[in-house]
Amino acid sequence: MRIDATGATHDGDATYNGWMAHLRPQWPICTHDKKTDNSMTDPILLTPGPLTTSEATKAAMMYDWGSWDGAFNAMTATVCRDLTAIIQAQDSHVCIPLQGSGTFAVEAALGTLVPRKGKVLVPDNGSYCKRIVRIMNCLGREVVVLAHDESAAADPARVDAALAADPTITHVAQVHCETGTGILNPLPAIAEVVAARGRGLIIDAMSSYGAIPIDARSLRFEALIAASGKCLEGVPGMGFVIARRAALEEARGNSQSLALDLLDQWQYLQKTGQWRFTPPTHVVAALRAAIDQYQAQGGQPARLARYASNCAALVKGMRELGFQTFLPDALQAPIIVTFHSPADPAYDFPEFYRRVRERGFILYPGKLTAVDTLRVGCIGAIGPEVMNQAVAAVADVLRDMGVRERARR
Amino acid sequence: MRIDATGATHDGDATYNGWMAHLRPQWPICTHDKKTDNSMTDPILLTPGPLTTSEATKAAMMYDWGSWDGAFNAMTATVCRDLTAIIQAQDSHVCIPLQGSGTFAVEAALGTLVPRKGKVLVPDNGSYCKRIVRIMNCLGREVVVLAHDESAAADPARVDAALAADPTITHVAQVHCETGTGILNPLPAIAEVVAARGRGLIIDAMSSYGAIPIDARSLRFEALIAASGKCLEGVPGMGFVIARRAALEEARGNSQSLALDLLDQWQYLQKTGQWRFTPPTHVVAALRAAIDQYQAQGGQPARLARYASNCAALVKGMRELGFQTFLPDALQAPIIVTFHSPADPAYDFPEFYRRVRERGFILYPGKLTAVDTLRVGCIGAIGPEVMNQAVAAVADVLRDMGVRERARR
Repeated sequence: MRIDATGATHDGDATYNGWMAHLRPQWPICTHDKKTDNSMTDPILLTPGPLTTSEATKAAMMYDWGSWDGAFNAMTATVCRDLTAIIQAQDSHVCIPLQGSGTFAVEAALGTLVPRKGKVLVPDNGSYCKRIVRIMNCLGREVVVLAHDESAAADPARVDAALAADPTITHVAQVHCETGTGILNPLPAIAEVVAARGRGLIIDAMSSYGAIPIDARSLRFEALIAASGKCLEGVPGMGFVIARRAALEEARGNSQSLALDLLDQWQYLQKTGQWRFTPPTHVVAALRAAIDQYQAQGGQPARLARYASNCAALVKGMRELGFQTFLPDALQAPIIVTFHSPADPAYDFPEFYRRVRERGFILYPGKLTAVDTLRVGCIGAIGPEVMNQAVAAVADVLRDMGVRERARR
Repeated sequence: MRIDATGATHDGDATYNGWMAHLRPQWPICTHDKKTDNSMTDPILLTPGPLTTSEATKAAMMYDWGSWDGAFNAMTATVCRDLTAIIQAQDSHVCIPLQGSGTFAVEAALGTLVPRKGKVLVPDNGSYCKRIVRIMNCLGREVVVLAHDESAAADPARVDAALAADPTITHVAQVHCETGTGILNPLPAIAEVVAARGRGLIIDAMSSYGAIPIDARSLRFEALIAASGKCLEGVPGMGFVIARRAALEEARGNSQSLALDLLDQWQYLQKTGQWRFTPPTHVVAALRAAIDQYQAQGGQPARLARYASNCAALVKGMRELGFQTFLPDALQAPIIVTFHSPADPAYDFPEFYRRVRERGFILYPGKLTAVDTLRVGCIGAIGPEVMNQAVAAVADVLRDMGVRERARR
C-alpha cells in the first residue's frame, strides 16, 4: 500500500478504502532508500513479532485455501517438513503446528509433554520464563523456580545443582532468547546438564528459532517451541512444536485440554493430512512464502548475519546518541535490544514513541519492573540501513523533545 | 490473483511466484459472471469456513500492524464493539477475542464460565455437540449428554425435563446451527426453558452468528461463541466470545489454562487495550474489513437473505439433478446443506470432489457416521449465481462419471 501526499491510499489490487484507511497515520517519507524513493510506505515495526514482513509474504494471503483440500494439506506437510529440517531434527522429532499465538504452543507443549505428576524446573531470568511458571500454575502442575537476575544468563551449574538436589524434577523449561530483556541463554550448556541428569528439556525458542543456530543432532530436547511471526518473518497466528517423537508418543492422557493437546493434533495430522480444527489458512500460506524466502536468502546463517548487522548498527547508533544498553554485549542476542531510558526529565516514553512513530518506526516498551527501559527489535524483513534510519529518527525526536542527558536514569 | 491461459500467475502487487504457484491448480474458466469476464479466478470454497472472502477483505492483510500500537488497539476495540452490537448485547455482555480456531474459543468459554464443580447438559444432534462433550471430558468436568437423532432438532421439552430431573446441572451447552448436518436448532425455545429453570446457557453459534438473528435483549445466555472465518466472511484465525459481564466477573479461578482463560484475556484488554499474547494482527485487520462490508451491505438481514438465496438455488438445482437432502426443508439452516450420496456405483466422493474442483468449486465431505453424504456450504462472499454455476459443474461431472442414479444410497 502507498499513501500519497494527500493521505489517500492506493491499493494496487484493492477497491477497499474504508475504515482502516482512516486509522493509518499519514507519516512523512520513510523508506529503505530515501534517496531513490520519494514515496511513503508503511511504518517499520521494530518489535519482536509481529514484525515487518516482505510484500511477497503478505501477497501469499491474497488467496483463499480450502482447509480440507489436498493442496492445503500438501502445504502444511512441506511447512512441517521444513520447520523440522531447519534445526536438523527430521530423524528424531516431528513438527506439530498449532493455531493461536506462540504462548498457546508453549502451554500445549508443557501440558502435553509433562506428565500430570511431573515437576518442571524453570531457570528464571525474565518475563517469558515467568510466563512458563504461570502456565504451570494454571495447569495445576508442580514447578520450581530457579531465580536469576534479569541481567544474568541462565547458569548451567545452578541448573545442575538443582537437578542433583531434587530427583523428582522431571523436566527443565528453558527460554532460549528471553525477549523481555534480549538476553541469550547458553542453551547447549543447559541441554548438556539436563541430558546428563536424565531429565527432559523443553525449549521456548520463540524469538531465536531460525536465526540462532540450534542442532537437534547434538542438542537433546523433548520439545522446542516457536511461532510463525518471529525470525521466520511470517505473520502471527500459529505456533509450532518440534517434539521428540518418542516423547510425544508417550504423552497420552497428559493433556487436560482438547484444543491444546499436541498428541491428538499430531495423530490427526498423521492420519488425515489435516489440522484437527480450522487452520489459519492465510497465516499458513504466508509462512510457506516466508520459509521460501528464508531458504532462498541462505537459511539460518544468512538470517543470523542480517540480524547481527541490524543489531550492530542499532547499538552503535544508539550509543553514539548517548543511550546505554541494559545488557553487556556478550549476553546480547541480535533479536531485541533493551536500552535504559534517558535520565533527562524531558524524556517521556509515550511521547517519544508517538514522535518516532510519526517518523515511520514503531518501537517497543521495556518489560522490566525495576528499571525504566525501552526495547528496539532487530528482526523482520529489514536491513541495517533501516536501523540507521531509525537511529536518525530517534536523534531527531530527542532533539525536538529537548532530551539532552541520554545516559541511564 | 489471476492465472492466464498458459497457467502463469499474475499477482498485481507481488513479485512472489514461488513454491505456492505450483500448488495452485490451473482450473478452467469459472467466474461470478462468465459472460463479461473470461479470465480465470481462484476456486470458490463451498465449505463452511474457511470460505471465499472478498478481495477487499484479503487486501486488508497487506499491511503489518504493531500489536502494541494505538492504531491496532483502536481496531480491536471497534471490532469488539461491533461484534457485541450485531446481537444487541452491548448493554449486558462483553466481547472477548481469542487467538486460534473457533474450537479454542468454545473450550475457553466452557473452561472459564463453567465452575470446576459445574455440570453441563449437551443436547446432542451432531458432531459439534459431540466436540463439546469431548472438551468437557478433557477438562475433567461433568457432562450429561441428551442424545438426539442427527436428523432431529434439539427438543426444548426434553431439555426442560432433563433440567427438572437433575438440579445439579448448572449449564446447557447448545449448538445453534450444527455444521455437521446443517440443522438449525430452536435456540429461542431452548433459551426460554434454560432461563426458566435458572441455569446458564452457553451457545456455540459458530456457523450462525451474523446470519441467523440472535437478540441478546430477549434471549438470555451466559456466553455465545463464534469466529472470524464464518458468516462474517473474514479469514480464519480468531474466535470470540460474547459473555454476560456479570457471569464473566464471577469466573475467577475456573480456568485451568492460561492461554484459554477468558477472564484474564478480558481484564488485560480492559486495562491495556491490548490482547494478552501476540494477536493474529492480519486476521484482525481482515475481520475489521469484513465487518465494514457486512455493515455496508445491510447487516444480518441482508446476510441472511443472500445466504437463503444461495441455499435455495443450491437445493433447487441439486434436486433437479436428482440429489436428496439429508434434512427436511423446515430444519435446514441456509448455511451448509447435507446431500445423500448418489446410489449409482459409478459415484465415488474423492473422484467427484477432484473433478468438481477442476471446474472451480471446492465441496465438503459429509460428517455423518451412519449415512453416506456430502456437504455444500452456502456461505462466503458469493451469490446465488455462483451456486447455479456450482450445480452446473456438478451436472457436468456426474455426466462425465456416468452417475445416473442420483437418489440416496
